[in-house]
Amino acid sequence: MIKKEMLYEGKAKQIYKTKEDDKLIVLFKDDATAFNGEKKGQISGKGIMNNKISNIFFKLLADNNVPTHLLEEISETEVLVRKLEIIPVEVVMRNIAAGSLAKRLGLEEGTVMSQPVLEFYYKDDDLGDPMINEYHIYAQKMADREEIARIKELSFKINELLIDFLKDKGIELVDFKLEFGKGSDGKIYLGDEISPDTCRFWDSETREKLDKDRFRRDLGGVEGAYQEILRRLQG
Amino acid sequence: MIKKEMLYEGKAKQIYKTKEDDKLIVLFKDDATAFNGEKKGQISGKGIMNNKISNIFFKLLADNNVPTHLLEEISETEVLVRKLEIIPVEVVMRNIAAGSLAKRLGLEEGTVMSQPVLEFYYKDDDLGDPMINEYHIYAQKMADREEIARIKELSFKINELLIDFLKDKGIELVDFKLEFGKGSDGKIYLGDEISPDTCRFWDSETREKLDKDRFRRDLGGVEGAYQEILRRLQG
Ligand SMILES: Nc1ncnc2c1ncn2[C@@H]1O[C@H](COP(=O)(O)OP(=O)(O)O)[C@@H](O)[C@H]1O
Ligand SMILES: Nc1ncnc2c1ncn2[C@@H]1O[C@H](COP(=O)(O)OP(=O)(O)O)[C@@H](O)[C@H]1O
Ligand SMILES: [Mg+2]
Ligand SMILES: [Mg+2]
Repeated sequence: MIKKEMLYEGKAKQIYKTKEDDKLIVLFKDDATAFNGEKKGQISGKGIMNNKISNIFFKLLADNNVPTHLLEEISETEVLVRKLEIIPVEVVMRNIAAGSLAKRLGLEEGTVMSQPVLEFYYKDDDLGDPMINEYHIYAQKMADREEIARIKELSFKINELLIDFLKDKGIELVDFKLEFGKGSDGKIYLGDEISPDTCRFWDSETREKLDKDRFRRDLGGVEGAYQEILRRLQG
Repeated sequence: MIKKEMLYEGKAKQIYKTKEDDKLIVLFKDDATAFNGEKKGQISGKGIMNNKISNIFFKLLADNNVPTHLLEEISETEVLVRKLEIIPVEVVMRNIAAGSLAKRLGLEEGTVMSQPVLEFYYKDDDLGDPMINEYHIYAQKMADREEIARIKELSFKINELLIDFLKDKGIELVDFKLEFGKGSDGKIYLGDEISPDTCRFWDSETREKLDKDRFRRDLGGVEGAYQEILRRLQG
């Protein structure tokens, strides 16, 4: 599949047209940003690692009847995906309090939630990706009730599948972000990526952070953490 | 009914015990606060006006099968109410974008929402009453699924009843805040108050603000606005 013009350059990926209307190529970059783009940097080898990591997760999900955009791996940094009309709502699933959840509820980072917490954020950089709820989504016609019901069902299922898969690798799934979209068939598919950029992964034993928080909080060892995740997933 | 010791002094009301265990007296004060207590003042005559205004609304709701805490008016500033175990979640219903909703979604103040928007806030002054969703409520055991279903049902019903009632008085119901609690019978009741302190009311013709935003935003004419609401409700 040959890349045609670039459709969109995001903070972590580039999206290219292909000669087929309903297929896109996603290219994973080494660029890293945090705090809504305020902090910028590079994580060397991230494009390759995130592409590999995300593909492992997406294949696990596809094997378990979660419809995903993934069609084919084309190179170390590129995948061919189903083109989606992305729903402008980020779904965040949380099992352990960290980041904004810890702050919002006054919980210590590391508090295990008594049940998974799903949050919606409006994907809008200018507004700083504000937290929203289902009523905001319906009133602003970001998605309809049926779509949101499906997205919630898939998100909880993905959470279960990832927790189980990661447990055997000695990784605690603290929280993660998902994006969904509608395919040309009108169905809901999981899009975007699942990687240390979009998840919080903690070592089950030491609770060491193995994700983008190392970059956000200047903890050092960023590349090593991404490598470690890839190594454990491949193992 | 005789007031016994004061149980709680809040920002706008005092709560007293009575000789009956499941009944309380609520006293409406003239004190006004805004921005989570940062701005403080007095609105002269507010206690009397809010008590009267709130009672008109609560009687309207009771007449329409909404269970409320109101038992009896005892004086110009006091009511006898059913004691509730207040659920620490404020319900905000919004018909027109204003305040934090306008900011959150990047909407111009005054934008009519295509459908009512319900929001939940965690009633916690130290945390600044953060917005939360149903999953935060369940995980933190603030209320269970059945209670939240009932609270949502009642909130949408109250919104409809208030919109209809206020339309005839030339008042637009922009948004309002509700608190619910559990009675000793285990049922959900509407508690607290419904007044210009807890609602945004706009004149239907001129869109003039007739509520606490006059105090929050130093617009002047605060007492007059509360008086005008009372006058229209009594008319
Ligand atoms: N299958 C897909 N079809 C269309 N768009 C997609 C698909 N998967 C992801 N996207 C979008 O492509 C962009 C990915 O690039 P990224 O660098 O993550 O962007 P952003 O800075 O907007 O987060 C995102 O806007 C994402 O919503
Ligand atoms: N029926 C009731 N039973 C018990 N508590 C109630 C009842 N109605 C209202 N309350 C509580 O009484 C307090 C009312 O006083 P207020 O000045 O509004 O307090 P606050 O500053 O906490 O908002 C609130 O905390 C409210 O939750
Ligand atoms: Mg992205
Ligand atoms: Mg109050």
